[in-house]
Amino acid sequence: MKELKVTVIGGGSSYTPELINGFLMRKNELPVKEVVLVDIEDGKEKVNTVSKLAERMVKKAGLKTKITVSFNRKEALKNSDFVVTQFRVGGLEARAKDERFPLKYNVIGQETCGPGGFAKALRTIPVILDICRDIEEVCPEAWLINFTNPSGMVTEAVNKYSNVKCIGLCNVPIHMKMDFAKALGVSSEELFVEFIGLNHLVWAKSVWLKGKDITQDAIEAMTDKESLSMKNIPAIPWDRDYLKAVGMIPSPYHRYYLMTADMVEEEKEAASEGGKGTRAEIVQGVEAKLFDIYKDENVDVKPKELENRGGAYYSDAAVSLISAIFNDKKEIHTVNVLNNGIIKALPDNCIIETNAIVDNTGATPVLLKSPLDEEAVGLIHSVKSYEIATVDAAANGDKEKALVALVNNPLIPSIDISKKLLEELLEINKPYLPQFN
Amino acid sequence: MKELKVTVIGGGSSYTPELINGFLMRKNELPVKEVVLVDIEDGKEKVNTVSKLAERMVKKAGLKTKITVSFNRKEALKNSDFVVTQFRVGGLEARAKDERFPLKYNVIGQETCGPGGFAKALRTIPVILDICRDIEEVCPEAWLINFTNPSGMVTEAVNKYSNVKCIGLCNVPIHMKMDFAKALGVSSEELFVEFIGLNHLVWAKSVWLKGKDITQDAIEAMTDKESLSMKNIPAIPWDRDYLKAVGMIPSPYHRYYLMTADMVEEEKEAASEGGKGTRAEIVQGVEAKLFDIYKDENVDVKPKELENRGGAYYSDAAVSLISAIFNDKKEIHTVNVLNNGIIKALPDNCIIETNAIVDNTGATPVLLKSPLDEEAVGLIHSVKSYEIATVDAAANGDKEKALVALVNNPLIPSIDISKKLLEELLEINKPYLPQFN
Amino acid sequence: MKELKVTVIGGGSSYTPELINGFLMRKNELPVKEVVLVDIEDGKEKVNTVSKLAERMVKKAGLKTKITVSFNRKEALKNSDFVVTQFRVGGLEARAKDERFPLKYNVIGQETCGPGGFAKALRTIPVILDICRDIEEVCPEAWLINFTNPSGMVTEAVNKYSNVKCIGLCNVPIHMKMDFAKALGVSSEELFVEFIGLNHLVWAKSVWLKGKDITQDAIEAMTDKESLSMKNIPAIPWDRDYLKAVGMIPSPYHRYYLMTADMVEEEKEAASEGGKGTRAEIVQGVEAKLFDIYKDENVDVKPKELENRGGAYYSDAAVSLISAIFNDKKEIHTVNVLNNGIIKALPDNCIIETNAIVDNTGATPVLLKSPLDEEAVGLIHSVKSYEIATVDAAANGDKEKALVALVNNPLIPSIDISKKLLEELLEINKPYLPQFN
Amino acid sequence: MKELKVTVIGGGSSYTPELINGFLMRKNELPVKEVVLVDIEDGKEKVNTVSKLAERMVKKAGLKTKITVSFNRKEALKNSDFVVTQFRVGGLEARAKDERFPLKYNVIGQETCGPGGFAKALRTIPVILDICRDIEEVCPEAWLINFTNPSGMVTEAVNKYSNVKCIGLCNVPIHMKMDFAKALGVSSEELFVEFIGLNHLVWAKSVWLKGKDITQDAIEAMTDKESLSMKNIPAIPWDRDYLKAVGMIPSPYHRYYLMTADMVEEEKEAASEGGKGTRAEIVQGVEAKLFDIYKDENVDVKPKELENRGGAYYSDAAVSLISAIFNDKKEIHTVNVLNNGIIKALPDNCIIETNAIVDNTGATPVLLKSPLDEEAVGLIHSVKSYEIATVDAAANGDKEKALVALVNNPLIPSIDISKKLLEELLEINKPYLPQFN
Repeated sequence: MKELKVTVIGGGSSYTPELINGFLMRKNELPVKEVVLVDIEDGKEKVNTVSKLAERMVKKAGLKTKITVSFNRKEALKNSDFVVTQFRVGGLEARAKDERFPLKYNVIGQETCGPGGFAKALRTIPVILDICRDIEEVCPEAWLINFTNPSGMVTEAVNKYSNVKCIGLCNVPIHMKMDFAKALGVSSEELFVEFIGLNHLVWAKSVWLKGKDITQDAIEAMTDKESLSMKNIPAIPWDRDYLKAVGMIPSPYHRYYLMTADMVEEEKEAASEGGKGTRAEIVQGVEAKLFDIYKDENVDVKPKELENRGGAYYSDAAVSLISAIFNDKKEIHTVNVLNNGIIKALPDNCIIETNAIVDNTGATPVLLKSPLDEEAVGLIHSVKSYEIATVDAAANGDKEKALVALVNNPLIPSIDISKKLLEELLEINKPYLPQFN
Repeated sequence: MKELKVTVIGGGSSYTPELINGFLMRKNELPVKEVVLVDIEDGKEKVNTVSKLAERMVKKAGLKTKITVSFNRKEALKNSDFVVTQFRVGGLEARAKDERFPLKYNVIGQETCGPGGFAKALRTIPVILDICRDIEEVCPEAWLINFTNPSGMVTEAVNKYSNVKCIGLCNVPIHMKMDFAKALGVSSEELFVEFIGLNHLVWAKSVWLKGKDITQDAIEAMTDKESLSMKNIPAIPWDRDYLKAVGMIPSPYHRYYLMTADMVEEEKEAASEGGKGTRAEIVQGVEAKLFDIYKDENVDVKPKELENRGGAYYSDAAVSLISAIFNDKKEIHTVNVLNNGIIKALPDNCIIETNAIVDNTGATPVLLKSPLDEEAVGLIHSVKSYEIATVDAAANGDKEKALVALVNNPLIPSIDISKKLLEELLEINKPYLPQFN
Repeated sequence: MKELKVTVIGGGSSYTPELINGFLMRKNELPVKEVVLVDIEDGKEKVNTVSKLAERMVKKAGLKTKITVSFNRKEALKNSDFVVTQFRVGGLEARAKDERFPLKYNVIGQETCGPGGFAKALRTIPVILDICRDIEEVCPEAWLINFTNPSGMVTEAVNKYSNVKCIGLCNVPIHMKMDFAKALGVSSEELFVEFIGLNHLVWAKSVWLKGKDITQDAIEAMTDKESLSMKNIPAIPWDRDYLKAVGMIPSPYHRYYLMTADMVEEEKEAASEGGKGTRAEIVQGVEAKLFDIYKDENVDVKPKELENRGGAYYSDAAVSLISAIFNDKKEIHTVNVLNNGIIKALPDNCIIETNAIVDNTGATPVLLKSPLDEEAVGLIHSVKSYEIATVDAAANGDKEKALVALVNNPLIPSIDISKKLLEELLEINKPYLPQFN
Repeated sequence: MKELKVTVIGGGSSYTPELINGFLMRKNELPVKEVVLVDIEDGKEKVNTVSKLAERMVKKAGLKTKITVSFNRKEALKNSDFVVTQFRVGGLEARAKDERFPLKYNVIGQETCGPGGFAKALRTIPVILDICRDIEEVCPEAWLINFTNPSGMVTEAVNKYSNVKCIGLCNVPIHMKMDFAKALGVSSEELFVEFIGLNHLVWAKSVWLKGKDITQDAIEAMTDKESLSMKNIPAIPWDRDYLKAVGMIPSPYHRYYLMTADMVEEEKEAASEGGKGTRAEIVQGVEAKLFDIYKDENVDVKPKELENRGGAYYSDAAVSLISAIFNDKKEIHTVNVLNNGIIKALPDNCIIETNAIVDNTGATPVLLKSPLDEEAVGLIHSVKSYEIATVDAAANGDKEKALVALVNNPLIPSIDISKKLLEELLEINKPYLPQFN
């Protein structure tokens, strides 16, 4: 049996033990020979800490998987079978800025939505395209599993500007499914969920229990008790009347688009003096504690505290996807893939998030059981128009497209504010935006 | 030569003299035998005033066109060749409410956009469908020229729920073209403008002078001097950088979507104590003065003061369209017609505003010279998703669809506010919304 | 566990023991409580013979499945979970006529293609729609697995004119896959084949061995040795240059379209005095021998001689499909389903043959890994245009559509011949075409 | 007013006096300063004869248009405003071969359809692309009016492989319209015909008289008396039942597809010993006589005998198109243009023949009043699949695509015959097919 080399870009991330744990749990189906943790020199201490924990975890599991650290990305990529990207350009510091600078204009400040997500896309896309040029050169047959946010736009950039085989991944769909299972009191294995939309704007279009359509029950359940949400998103409850009217279940991130006013208030309070801080600022605290634990030489399994970090099911999503490819499983996964007519209103060559058959030729989308309601497509198209302009602006350093992108973003209420946000974010992120300088 | 009977629904409108003037100006190509002004009993005084002025105008022009007044719509429609609809359910009073009630939620209050336009659609669509049932019965071959706002949605309702031959019309495109001509210092006859979008959300995609593409010049001209606008829309200047980036020229109404924050402020100030009042309130004053003039038996031509009313070029648009149909002209007009693939992302059976060949088979759209940029489609689709749900809600009295419509409207920032707006507008407009009661 | 009632329309068919055998082979996953064999009075002797053999087979397998015979279709359908249709209106006698009458015009005479298939569609569609009305009334939740030819058009008629949940099935795709496996010397389980096209006009667009694209190898293999064919189609070898040029592997039935001249010659020789007879005539002999065997009370397993009948893998295709539905397997099957954009050039509501995920909500198509070459769509569209007109003609008794259908059929070389064929087939099949009388 | 330079490639054609006559008839709207007749050295005698006749015609008309002859194409193209292509690679001799060689396989032998048209496309496309490279270099703003057959495929090649502004033209639509007018006894100006399809496969989808749909009358008229046809196509009458059933009127060329058997018989008889000869052979006689007349120095107008040549209305079609462009007329012409969704089933970038608005930005198609019946699209798509492969084969010298093209052609009944035809035509046309050698 072929043995695998997996290269993790952003290997020093606090999420890495989650990923390592995933490989250990699937050792029987995934013969991982080597995991290379690639990071930048600035992250040396963190990646070394993570690497040592990973080695202890492997040893504890009685395996021989080699864990290595590299600061030479291209060298590390050689002969890789899978490349997992989970890096963050500018680190949590940059994210904290993304979350704060829009607030003064009463605009959402968030990691992946609004002007913050836009800034992150501008920082990230040139780097992922650099990585892709390396992959094309030294391991063109490798699969790139992109977990780097904004995952949809990053995956779209890879598809438009490289030949790398890439699947975009996010833990939101699996998170939603787990929440449904919990709210309905059933096992998640018994549920089937039709997901459709964009990354961080995905709908559960229908929910099935053993082949019975229980979407209405799921809507009741999700608005009955505690609301569907995630660690990083304030859990403002969903309005049951609206969910029944629209007949689908929104992702936690839909709150930014459908409860904009409330979310801005929430964020402004958190960011205010005496507030709890923005999500990045909270995470910085969580991470500091996590790394203290990681350094403890007695720790040789995934620490329970990692759950507070917010990446629940990340390992499940990523490692089961890798296994479906490697083992040619023809299994249904929810991934970010080329649209190709699944949402007819969108261009074929844009990336959507939907269910696909995964085997070792990649991810092939499955049609929806029934088409999306016409009324449901507008918001998706609106955000996709923003995303298309953003990918173009980020890849080509095109400031005009950047302005069009921000004006297109439904979270920004005017051209005037778009221009101010653009000037400000170009200035704040200057060190990370060579394409605009 | 066949002689024409034209029936005007909402005949007592202050616009009617404009329309009569149009017929008089085109007397050589349009043999109008009779114009019937249909109105409701409540509008008796106004329609009679208008009718007498019209008679004086006809006489002055030396023609024999018969001007009649009717309060029996179905009877009046018999044998009509053209039916022009310019009625306003609830009158300017209802419009004034449309303009005020959203402001407390910091939401645009406007006649055709946002919650106000939504309320107007709910009031108007059942009435137009009643009119269509009459037309189907007594003059099925007549052409319905719909000028009643929101013209796009009203025309979409007619197309979806009746068999009446209907073309929707708006004076915005011709207004824009005239403004371009003025700003560029050329004659409007020399200009050709490619219009595409929705009613009150139409773009001048390209502008041509004697076959030369002068779109960039037009952009310069429209942002150089005074801004492109209309009587009823505050003329906040357009940002040149944005217009150059997007490469097209927006309609005056785009301000509501692209400068939302500023427009809300503007409206709130106008509506505040000591402000100049909402547009409807201003128009109420203008109308009062107009009717004083109309009553003056010495007046026998279209009064100059009518220009302050805001319907510039209405007569041009409507009468030249009627003439193009009657005379089988195969002339290009900008109208509201079935999409049928012109904007590929939108359903075939929705109504868009675009250039079409008009002859006596109706209006057949012409393809765009080049497709819309992908980035430009999102906002259009977003508003169309709102419109589709609105037409459904209005025609079927479906409150769930009404909620979906408001949440879809890009001018409303949350589900919560959508629900409050919905309850309030259903209450305010109760007498005019039998379908919800 | 729920127990299943399966109703077989055309239960007296010689294929039935194949189906029974399939159920016996999958007894662990398919708890079939009862199989009802429905037939018409004229087929009493045959259905009773088959029924008794089926009972002996069940007994031999040590099961308790009840085998019943019914001549009251509606009664039999009550409470059915699955309905399998394998009836033949007019029997082999009608088929023999289908195969002979076009030959005098030098036109293909065949069971499912050309004028013969057209006549069969006209005879069959009214009957399947009658069956559907019964199903809607007495077992609306049942799945209709349609195996009756022409399977694509019959399934399209069911979808257009009834609400019955129906999947069309054909053994050609599985037959092709088995042939590839044999020619390549690999196990069929290791192969994955992307099928796309119409029923009896399906292409193997790509062939994969353990995730490696081996389409070119498969082309070599299929043209190297004995040709891909089936019992009922003369095995004229495929031209390797053409298959390489087109890059896909045609179904055996493609011969009628791509080697028309040769196939007509073949058929004319077979039908000539001293020839081997048409396929129906040969099958009549095979069937007679089969029924002699079936009558033998010592026979209690599927007789080996059934293989000569030509329905290889029918049981595999049908029973594994039923099991995938019943057990919610989310397994890929090649079936006849609504197009819905899979082949973009064809209407959404037509039936195509392609790969789909099967679970207990039915069959949901999977996108192609890459779109069909534009050059490959013409023939498919040409035949689909014939099929659309045929379904319309058959369901509505519309003679004009019938003429359009025949003229559209690429196997018929002129309007003149189309008209003669139409008159002749309406006359020959008069007893079976009430919709035209 | 700008004066025009028109360059005619294939200037020695017997059609040229027709074109010159057209310019003279429209002298008031088309200020043609110079007409350059470009030809190859082998055609010197003919082009000089034509040139002198043209000069006499100009003089007689009292104009000063300069008529020049050039054998240096690139030089001649400099500063051209319009380029008209009417050349014939290999001359009538090559056409005569195109018409004969397929007959031995019982396949249509014709100038633009079947294997003959295919051979002509292979000969012509490389030459037109050479011309385009010259135009791009020396007169990139010139309009190319392509009249060279097969006009649709040649125009498609220009659009796919060059940046030249090109409109493809054919006299078939105008010919059909004139025939309708004659058969209906009305003036052609009063008729409006909706044309849709491909070049030499165009349908009159609907016919309108002063805005009234008279398609059914036109069908009656066209099948009542003498059949719709052209000089070069045997006038086998159209079947009225079929035309009524299909609801549209076919072009004369549809006979090759819809009466294939009869047309082959016709052609075989004409080509047989004692037959009247193929069309090219007849034309060779006509041409010889025409050139005798052209040489006569007393002839100074378009000779009446030119009508026997078969290009009726060519001048009308071409010169009125040039005038519509030059004068920015926004007039409807039937032309060969990019599809862009007019026929939804076909690729956007293929060429179709349809009605378009012509102004000095070129030809912009008008939507159909109602979509094509699904049943009508199959044949069009089938021929377009052949055309797409042919254009690819011709432009790239790709023999595999050439084989696919011939197999796709609905007039060729088998792969085997396709291969034989391909080998034979490559051999026959060797001197003209450098791309395959």
